[in-house]
Amino acid sequence: MSTLFENCRILTPAGVITGFLGVEGKYIDYVGETRPAKAYDRVRNFTGRLMMPAFVNAHTHTPMTLLRGVGSDLSLQEWLFGKVFPIEDRLTAEDINVGSRLAALEMLSCGTGSFTDMYFFPEETARVALESGMKANLCRPVQSFDPAERGEDSARIAQALDLYNAFNGAGEGRILVDFCVHAEYTCTEPVTKYLADIVRERQGNLHVHLSETKKEHEDCVKKYGKTPARWFADLGAFDCGAFCAHCVWVTEEDMDLFLEKGVSVVHNPTSNMKLGSGFAPIQRMLDKGINVALGTDGAASNNNLNMAEELHLAGVIHNGYTGNPTVMKPMDLIKMATLSGAVLQRRYDTGTLEAGKRADICCVSLESPHMQPDLDTAALVAYSMQASDVKLTMVDGKVLYENGQFLTLDKDRILYDVSKTVKRLYS
Amino acid sequence: MSTLFENCRILTPAGVITGFLGVEGKYIDYVGETRPAKAYDRVRNFTGRLMMPAFVNAHTHTPMTLLRGVGSDLSLQEWLFGKVFPIEDRLTAEDINVGSRLAALEMLSCGTGSFTDMYFFPEETARVALESGMKANLCRPVQSFDPAERGEDSARIAQALDLYNAFNGAGEGRILVDFCVHAEYTCTEPVTKYLADIVRERQGNLHVHLSETKKEHEDCVKKYGKTPARWFADLGAFDCGAFCAHCVWVTEEDMDLFLEKGVSVVHNPTSNMKLGSGFAPIQRMLDKGINVALGTDGAASNNNLNMAEELHLAGVIHNGYTGNPTVMKPMDLIKMATLSGAVLQRRYDTGTLEAGKRADICCVSLESPHMQPDLDTAALVAYSMQASDVKLTMVDGKVLYENGQFLTLDKDRILYDVSKTVKRLYS
Repeated sequence: MSTLFENCRILTPAGVITGFLGVEGKYIDYVGETRPAKAYDRVRNFTGRLMMPAFVNAHTHTPMTLLRGVGSDLSLQEWLFGKVFPIEDRLTAEDINVGSRLAALEMLSCGTGSFTDMYFFPEETARVALESGMKANLCRPVQSFDPAERGEDSARIAQALDLYNAFNGAGEGRILVDFCVHAEYTCTEPVTKYLADIVRERQGNLHVHLSETKKEHEDCVKKYGKTPARWFADLGAFDCGAFCAHCVWVTEEDMDLFLEKGVSVVHNPTSNMKLGSGFAPIQRMLDKGINVALGTDGAASNNNLNMAEELHLAGVIHNGYTGNPTVMKPMDLIKMATLSGAVLQRRYDTGTLEAGKRADICCVSLESPHMQPDLDTAALVAYSMQASDVKLTMVDGKVLYENGQFLTLDKDRILYDVSKTVKRLYS
Repeated sequence: MSTLFENCRILTPAGVITGFLGVEGKYIDYVGETRPAKAYDRVRNFTGRLMMPAFVNAHTHTPMTLLRGVGSDLSLQEWLFGKVFPIEDRLTAEDINVGSRLAALEMLSCGTGSFTDMYFFPEETARVALESGMKANLCRPVQSFDPAERGEDSARIAQALDLYNAFNGAGEGRILVDFCVHAEYTCTEPVTKYLADIVRERQGNLHVHLSETKKEHEDCVKKYGKTPARWFADLGAFDCGAFCAHCVWVTEEDMDLFLEKGVSVVHNPTSNMKLGSGFAPIQRMLDKGINVALGTDGAASNNNLNMAEELHLAGVIHNGYTGNPTVMKPMDLIKMATLSGAVLQRRYDTGTLEAGKRADICCVSLESPHMQPDLDTAALVAYSMQASDVKLTMVDGKVLYENGQFLTLDKDRILYDVSKTVKRLYS
């Protein structure tokens, strides 16, 4: 099956053009201003629409949709210990499946084709990703609070390996299994080191939370005499593929370490603002050449999974914080939300619209009043676009969402399951 | 004509209830959990929808939709002098009409029922507001750079009075004409004092830009030995009704002055972030009891007129800046975007959903994936809602927008006019 989209605007790495985009099977086979010679099975007139790479949500906790809006007025401690942890404690594998399905609906309707998740019962999220047609990098977060526990004895590491063996590469590569140390403050040195060795042996990808709050960062310096980034590096955790979420309080040396070790960073602006964590030095990291992707974090601290909103927030808060209105530029922001996420996920065949790349595409209407006039298309995407402008989300050449319709998921059934689940959880 | 909305969620000043909302003519005549005895002409089942007060956009420059996205990567000086001013210089009255109509489409589709504008050719914006059915507080901004100019000789003040005489109270009170000094740095003392006297005589409302940038604030202190707020107060400009946009760099004494004089403040978080102006001390003002409303500023520095987005940004950036996740609370945010704007506009018969108030209503769908589950409706509005969740916008009991349809404006004609206008302006 091949499809030619004609008369659309197309966001290419070199800029926005008006023309033609061809899809053959799972791949883009043509992008250009002139009509291709090839005859496609289907031709679709996409006048007034922008084709751009599907968003990559590079750090989230999808099942936390079930905690959306819980305790929004509370302090971090009251929120976590009084609300979040007691509910999380009651979540079953089935609940995780329901929460992940709700998240998949939301992400697809917002133009997200791929996500990197960190939560428990990740095999359920893997099943949902397989069902939905989305791409997902999943992991079983490892924690260890017992200084005597050896990596060999960690049930969490055993589960992480089970997940890896069961799902890595599933769905023709749509599922990739990463490894994960939840954070420096929730794991011991021996267990972290043991896991780092496993990741290195498998040439895997390690997902961690890092320097999200000032307290976490400073406590680590007090406890170990080094920053969380240096702590991970010294345990060999950055000698495999690795990426760090948040990175609000990282030092100049931490950033140099990321660059040296090829560690990617995920910026989570809404969560960092809403939880009062602070402003990550994103422009500094971009200037150094660090790969910075964008993520929503979980819906409990955001409170949605909307990459268009995340892009917008990343685009304005750093200007406000530094007093410099030119800190973030539209094309850099779009790259963070797309290609940089693909690189972090180690999916090097996607993230841009070019012939030969995977057809992971988000189509955005330019016809709503708030998207007119179109004087600078990249600026429209960065500052004016709403998630509702997404009219089509395609992954590996397959349309998963179009004009409010979900082609792989049963929205009504999922919303029904959510209501049932929530009644039980909060009763 | 009377309508009963049944089975909806209703955001009342006391919290969110499920029940019935009756509209008779221009007014709400019933809000309650039980069915009213009265027979309504029409009954509409609004299950899965939230009725809330229509948004009040308390500071914008609507015709600047025609400059949306222009020069988004530039420094403030390059942007203003290289892009904005040369285009503004070419704008005709007809262009202002077109830009205002585009803005009206956008605002109505986002649930905004009323706006406070500051731009030139305001009579065109008044005509658009009348046509659209929206409420609008308009003004002719007064500037004066000639120290010798007397207020009596100011053409701008004469125009402001013409506007007042022609339009104040038009459309059965939907149009109110405010007065306006553009800012301390763009007006002289004699002209400001002369205008303040006029406003006081007419018991009018004065709209000013105040302490938006650090430079503006500090330059005023250098030049006059006092802050912009004190400068306005000393000229009698706060002895009438008055409200100040931005207020990023105001001092503790400035805020006390606002409170003493009953001056309202408009918070413009997106614009303050995007232009690198900084963080207004909003929580401090709310704590003092100052009336703080919310505005988008113009589309050139936002880049849209989306009050749901503004609410969200106001809700998270102050947490991020102060490091305290409990600074802003959902119900306070919603009040800023609705009732506080109505108070600033001196429309005391609207801004909440209560029997006897004007039927200025925005209806929000709770049925999209990103609005589920509904564990805390106010938090959903503050943090999860998208403008596209707005399904109906009603002003004075009249539906102006519903489910993508504009009932008073011709969307296709407006978008055509925008494209024609833009071609000329940017050729």
